[in-house]
Amino acid sequence: MDINKFFSAKNIAIVGASKDPKKIGHVIFRNLIDGNFQGSIFLVNPNAYQILNKKVYKKLNDIQEEIELAIIAVPAKLVLQIIKDCGKKKIQNVVIISSGFKEIGNEKLENDVKALLENLKIKCCGVNSLGIFDAYTRLDSLFLPRYQMKRPKPGGISFISQSGSVGAVFLDMATKQNYGISKFISCGNATNLDESDFLEYLGEDKETKIICMYIEELKDGQKFLKIAKKISRIKPIIAIKAGIKKEEDKSVISHTGILAGESEIYSAAFKQANIIKAESLEEMINFARILEKTIAPKGNKIQIITNGMGYGNLAADDVIKNKLDFSELNKKTISLLKKQFSENIILGNPMDLSGDATTQKYKLAIEACLNDDNVDILLLIVIYQTSLIDESIFDVIAEFNYLKKKPIIVVSTGGEFADSLKRLLEEKGIANFEFPEQAVKSIKALVDYHSRR
Amino acid sequence: MDINKFFSAKNIAIVGASKDPKKIGHVIFRNLIDGNFQGSIFLVNPNAYQILNKKVYKKLNDIQEEIELAIIAVPAKLVLQIIKDCGKKKIQNVVIISSGFKEIGNEKLENDVKALLENLKIKCCGVNSLGIFDAYTRLDSLFLPRYQMKRPKPGGISFISQSGSVGAVFLDMATKQNYGISKFISCGNATNLDESDFLEYLGEDKETKIICMYIEELKDGQKFLKIAKKISRIKPIIAIKAGIKKEEDKSVISHTGILAGESEIYSAAFKQANIIKAESLEEMINFARILEKTIAPKGNKIQIITNGMGYGNLAADDVIKNKLDFSELNKKTISLLKKQFSENIILGNPMDLSGDATTQKYKLAIEACLNDDNVDILLLIVIYQTSLIDESIFDVIAEFNYLKKKPIIVVSTGGEFADSLKRLLEEKGIANFEFPEQAVKSIKALVDYHSRR
Repeated sequence: MDINKFFSAKNIAIVGASKDPKKIGHVIFRNLIDGNFQGSIFLVNPNAYQILNKKVYKKLNDIQEEIELAIIAVPAKLVLQIIKDCGKKKIQNVVIISSGFKEIGNEKLENDVKALLENLKIKCCGVNSLGIFDAYTRLDSLFLPRYQMKRPKPGGISFISQSGSVGAVFLDMATKQNYGISKFISCGNATNLDESDFLEYLGEDKETKIICMYIEELKDGQKFLKIAKKISRIKPIIAIKAGIKKEEDKSVISHTGILAGESEIYSAAFKQANIIKAESLEEMINFARILEKTIAPKGNKIQIITNGMGYGNLAADDVIKNKLDFSELNKKTISLLKKQFSENIILGNPMDLSGDATTQKYKLAIEACLNDDNVDILLLIVIYQTSLIDESIFDVIAEFNYLKKKPIIVVSTGGEFADSLKRLLEEKGIANFEFPEQAVKSIKALVDYHSRR
Repeated sequence: MDINKFFSAKNIAIVGASKDPKKIGHVIFRNLIDGNFQGSIFLVNPNAYQILNKKVYKKLNDIQEEIELAIIAVPAKLVLQIIKDCGKKKIQNVVIISSGFKEIGNEKLENDVKALLENLKIKCCGVNSLGIFDAYTRLDSLFLPRYQMKRPKPGGISFISQSGSVGAVFLDMATKQNYGISKFISCGNATNLDESDFLEYLGEDKETKIICMYIEELKDGQKFLKIAKKISRIKPIIAIKAGIKKEEDKSVISHTGILAGESEIYSAAFKQANIIKAESLEEMINFARILEKTIAPKGNKIQIITNGMGYGNLAADDVIKNKLDFSELNKKTISLLKKQFSENIILGNPMDLSGDATTQKYKLAIEACLNDDNVDILLLIVIYQTSLIDESIFDVIAEFNYLKKKPIIVVSTGGEFADSLKRLLEEKGIANFEFPEQAVKSIKALVDYHSRR
């Protein structure tokens, strides 16, 4: 299904544009301007003449130019009429922000909207959608003021969300952490286009390297699994399934408007389709980051290298908890490192470079492990607080990472100093994590995805 | 056992003080000065006259004044002689930073040190210790330069660590997050005083509200459990047990110098002594924060209040995963809120105040739940990105929290704006978390601790 125009439209109409800075129809207009959107914007509202010095049309048909996408933010009761207007104006794509349908029990109106959209062959994102965001084209129909939520930079992670609030939180975090985003889609009630349609589109989208999803309920499970199976061979799909709460729980029923499915069924289905299941938003973002930045490992044998053995032991425990394996260095590697190192290096797993480790020691250790066939993945637990290590270690790690021989993952925990070094690493394209637990769980996701592919 | 002098000594000797800024004996001296330590410092080194314009004594016995604590940072082979000197000078407390004992296979030397300490009745923290830190007295024997690791502000959390690197990472994080710390102790090889001795001391320490521990191996399991059982009735003990890795794993054996115990045995013993087991450093810190800031709940029935239902649903799932219960509001509460609210409020659990929630709506909802006997704990999932909410909500939450009627926990996820509000809340003494998962796990720890007490 061609839904490219939702992200690449050049001529956009905002129906329900408003003078009132608090109103959705105003915020969206403002965001498009502030976001430096390069296309043309047309405002529609029968009761306004000008908004921010821009002409307002009484109705869609008054606009001369062809409109590729209409963003509709009018009261629910007016939506049917606006869709009819879109039909007359031959608009094929609409985002409906308006709420007040199925989600508050207004099934009849939702069904009428659905039928009308199908009848007029108009593709719709929504109703009750938070909107769409594309970091490349800067098409931004989110009704979130930029002072409350900045927008993320362009990158490879896309997100389809069945919840506006989860989407907003995700985008806000991505911006803060400086993660690059491709596209964000809030499905709303999925009256017309559903999560599977958007999944299929993102599967073919060149800018999307990783697809994240927040799912409360699948509109059509069979359709979803069929598409997901196909896409997951090309790029990773990471999904959170929310709504373990019982079907009889009224709040979930009211919220999604449909019965909540069973968590177990989803888990099995996800596995079958090689969808990576994340248990939380934090996990989803971590999995997305490691999968975006890291090459496929040959196996699941991890070598931990550290200059802080206690912290290394914590990481080792996480390897066991996540049912991953430890590498056993081959004899050649051990005798080489024994020659290069002083006596107080523990060449086990974790390999302890000791508190007085230098960048040079790390370099030798990483190089030896990259050349050892028994090692599939390197996990570096770098302690900055106690050590003689300085920023130069990151050039070393970045250079090795550039060779793309094996996945290299870094844990950098601590305060301001550690954080600044962490940002450096992130910029150099290395997946790094605040805690060993997060790093190892993410490695598990990396290993699982590639082994099932 | 009276080991108060380790934290409150007024006259301290640094044995092995050095001119070289890279040397441990220099860093420690410098940290005491930079940390504004109020007592007197005496430097000892046979080969130096002055360090940073301060007189250096050839040996301990040259010092006229009484010395309450000696910090020893000399090569391992000199340690026995220095301990003898301490005996002559009648010094009763020593911190031995020096390494090169059991941890690298030097059992004989360690045993000799142990015997000599016992013989001379000298209490020792170490050998192979990272040192001791007291945020109140500013006694700081950590050999970590302050530019690499700033020191935390005074507060109620103390930490006993069998790993220097874990200790350093913990302190660095606490500083960054602005958490208050009372005392930090790096046990080192526990040649003389062990983790149980320090635990007993912290149990009686007034400044310590919460005790955290990183344990690889207990020196004396029976002693530890006996003390822990007693202390956990007075204040919470949170422990990480590291070293699931098999006993035969050489790295762990070499590191701790003793065989690693079984994780399962520890879990059972911890439960018996009402020690809260944390699975990671992040969890340990989260548990410490909630237990420090939050009153004891009457039960485990949680009411979630949110203005973002999707994110609230994620939190609800975590409640189920952690085997906690949901409250069911009583009819009086529901009819009251129905009167106060407009039609589109979902009075379930989560209670959805909807995307257009205001501070006033939150206020009414919190108040009603605080007055409802069916609610034990309030979990507020506040979405800043999509909402009409501003900072005023925190005054409302802080005022309710001040009443100490029921635990109020807040989740604030997002970017810069959310972070700034989060810091505000933290300053007002409210436990708040970045993700629902962390919040609910921490609530579980809070409930478990108080129900077993």
